[in-house]
Amino acid sequence: MVSVSIMTSTLCKGATQMAQEAREAPARAAEQLRRNAGLMREVGRRMRALSPPFAATLARGSSDQAAAFAKFLFEMHAGIPTLSHAPSVGSLYHATSPRFDGVPMIAISQSGRSPDLIAAAEDAKGKGAVVIALVNDTASPLAELAEIVIPVHAGPETSVAATKSFVCTLVALTHLVAEWSQDAGLLAALERTGAVLEAAAQADWTGAVPLLRDASHMLVLGRGPTLPIAGEAALKLKETSSLHAEAFSSAEVAHGPMTLVGHGDPVLVLAPLDAARTGLRERLEDFAARGAQVIGAGLPEDLAPAAMVLPFDASVHPVLGAIAQIQSFYALAEALSLARGRDPDSPPHLNKVTRTL
Amino acid sequence: MVSVSIMTSTLCKGATQMAQEAREAPARAAEQLRRNAGLMREVGRRMRALSPPFAATLARGSSDQAAAFAKFLFEMHAGIPTLSHAPSVGSLYHATSPRFDGVPMIAISQSGRSPDLIAAAEDAKGKGAVVIALVNDTASPLAELAEIVIPVHAGPETSVAATKSFVCTLVALTHLVAEWSQDAGLLAALERTGAVLEAAAQADWTGAVPLLRDASHMLVLGRGPTLPIAGEAALKLKETSSLHAEAFSSAEVAHGPMTLVGHGDPVLVLAPLDAARTGLRERLEDFAARGAQVIGAGLPEDLAPAAMVLPFDASVHPVLGAIAQIQSFYALAEALSLARGRDPDSPPHLNKVTRTL
Repeated sequence: MVSVSIMTSTLCKGATQMAQEAREAPARAAEQLRRNAGLMREVGRRMRALSPPFAATLARGSSDQAAAFAKFLFEMHAGIPTLSHAPSVGSLYHATSPRFDGVPMIAISQSGRSPDLIAAAEDAKGKGAVVIALVNDTASPLAELAEIVIPVHAGPETSVAATKSFVCTLVALTHLVAEWSQDAGLLAALERTGAVLEAAAQADWTGAVPLLRDASHMLVLGRGPTLPIAGEAALKLKETSSLHAEAFSSAEVAHGPMTLVGHGDPVLVLAPLDAARTGLRERLEDFAARGAQVIGAGLPEDLAPAAMVLPFDASVHPVLGAIAQIQSFYALAEALSLARGRDPDSPPHLNKVTRTL
Repeated sequence: MVSVSIMTSTLCKGATQMAQEAREAPARAAEQLRRNAGLMREVGRRMRALSPPFAATLARGSSDQAAAFAKFLFEMHAGIPTLSHAPSVGSLYHATSPRFDGVPMIAISQSGRSPDLIAAAEDAKGKGAVVIALVNDTASPLAELAEIVIPVHAGPETSVAATKSFVCTLVALTHLVAEWSQDAGLLAALERTGAVLEAAAQADWTGAVPLLRDASHMLVLGRGPTLPIAGEAALKLKETSSLHAEAFSSAEVAHGPMTLVGHGDPVLVLAPLDAARTGLRERLEDFAARGAQVIGAGLPEDLAPAAMVLPFDASVHPVLGAIAQIQSFYALAEALSLARGRDPDSPPHLNKVTRTL
């Protein structure tokens, strides 16, 4: 308990690098939308002209959650089936298929410096893939080899736990698919991005800290656009609080994992605002019936069985709603990390740029 | 502790439905290979003639781990990029792309009765997808609507925790890709399936029980062909032991999750025998250096940092090696479940056929 009091006295909520950087995301995202407007119109045109049979993503860690968000967007809004290309297929096996010829491969990396991503992107480029790099650092080797570079304009990110670069990457992916598909609803919704994220940054989710402080493991649920958000939240809980959180689709969880949850266990629900809501209330009633402490953000009627409903504007576009959830979540993750006696800026055993092959 | 002694006295290791059914897998798989020989030659010919731009899988739960194994096989041996089609894309959003026209969609389900899989398969069929059902129950609605039905011939499976149907599904997928790609090495290796699995069923992994008995959460690592095996092992640990195990690629784990592992924590490693071994030993040295109890099956030189090396024949084909690992694992999962005072045949809150939409 001594370490807890030392940590909370030297590191106050909102004072860490992680919190400061997360707090910049709304303004950075709004600025990105302005700066990338011309580029995105052009990339959208190129994608329509390319009309590929499918698309691929290439990423690791948080960026792979952003890649799962891209898959959802591309399939829902551009009608393009999308696959996750395992970096090892290119970097270790050199087994990338010639069928990638003319296929857009969206490589996502904050730093653009992970050796396996670079090797896999190079391998795919050699097979004719159109490598599109979504990077924060446009001077990186990944950007260097890409045919199209989309800067996420998050600004320098020094916290080991990525926050603003993740939010900015989701916004860039939404911008890309909106221009690609010329989806009027999504293009209109994007104009509100800065305001929606600013409101999300002000929404206080730290009331959930007491319910999570003593947890050793937990589930985070999402579905549709919020499943990758749940994945990112689970990863942050691991990194910054050493809390073994695992993300599941609220449908998938019934195929086994829900057996883990017993009396008093917390379950965090990042509820979708679209058709993926189907059946969510009944699933949460199952959890509540066995005494789980359900904590959720979403539509109030879906969250009726929850022990705690987090502040959230459910009137926004479902895609922006998902991005708003992770924006609000980051401040909760920081507060929880401090409450558990940790420094979110210095997770044990981690570096900012992860080097694997 | 009372419940532990009661359980172990009434349910002896190897006496449960789960253990009995798992023990049947080697013979069932060998019989399947014989019975499906003509069908698989024909399906292989059809796939070569179809020469699709990509393939898709459709599955949930354990079957979705088998689908990830299919992705690895199709990409490595048939050169076909493969994507995981989220059931909700078809069943809730009805957003399946017209680009699925002429694309094989491998729908995997033991029972063939999950409503969301059936709805999604029907939706994809309407868009021109060639639905291939891999099912244990050929009288099921999923088999009914499929263009091609591949029976896994596991025999009746009554245990809630799927075992022999999972092993038999992996063997059927390997058979399919071997015929599709006409890979001589894989076709030759398949002939040894029954003997390899029989040896794996006899390998005793229960020595790991004392290291796992008191764990509340843990990581299971794999990569390449063994990543889906790690996923299935993690799911079984959840279902039958309420042990929150999560699977990671041994590359991916460095992007955050390894921070969870501290002194004395168990890490189960299902090591690949192919190029995906790269860097594994160094990664395991990192874990061992922080006091983790690494338990592994694989090549002895990769597992040098392990606290316990499980009996495993590392001279087999890497694809069969992965299937052998899950065969050996099931008896460990059963013994652990009993040692933790549970009945692996009656996991709380689970049914054999999971109904989600």
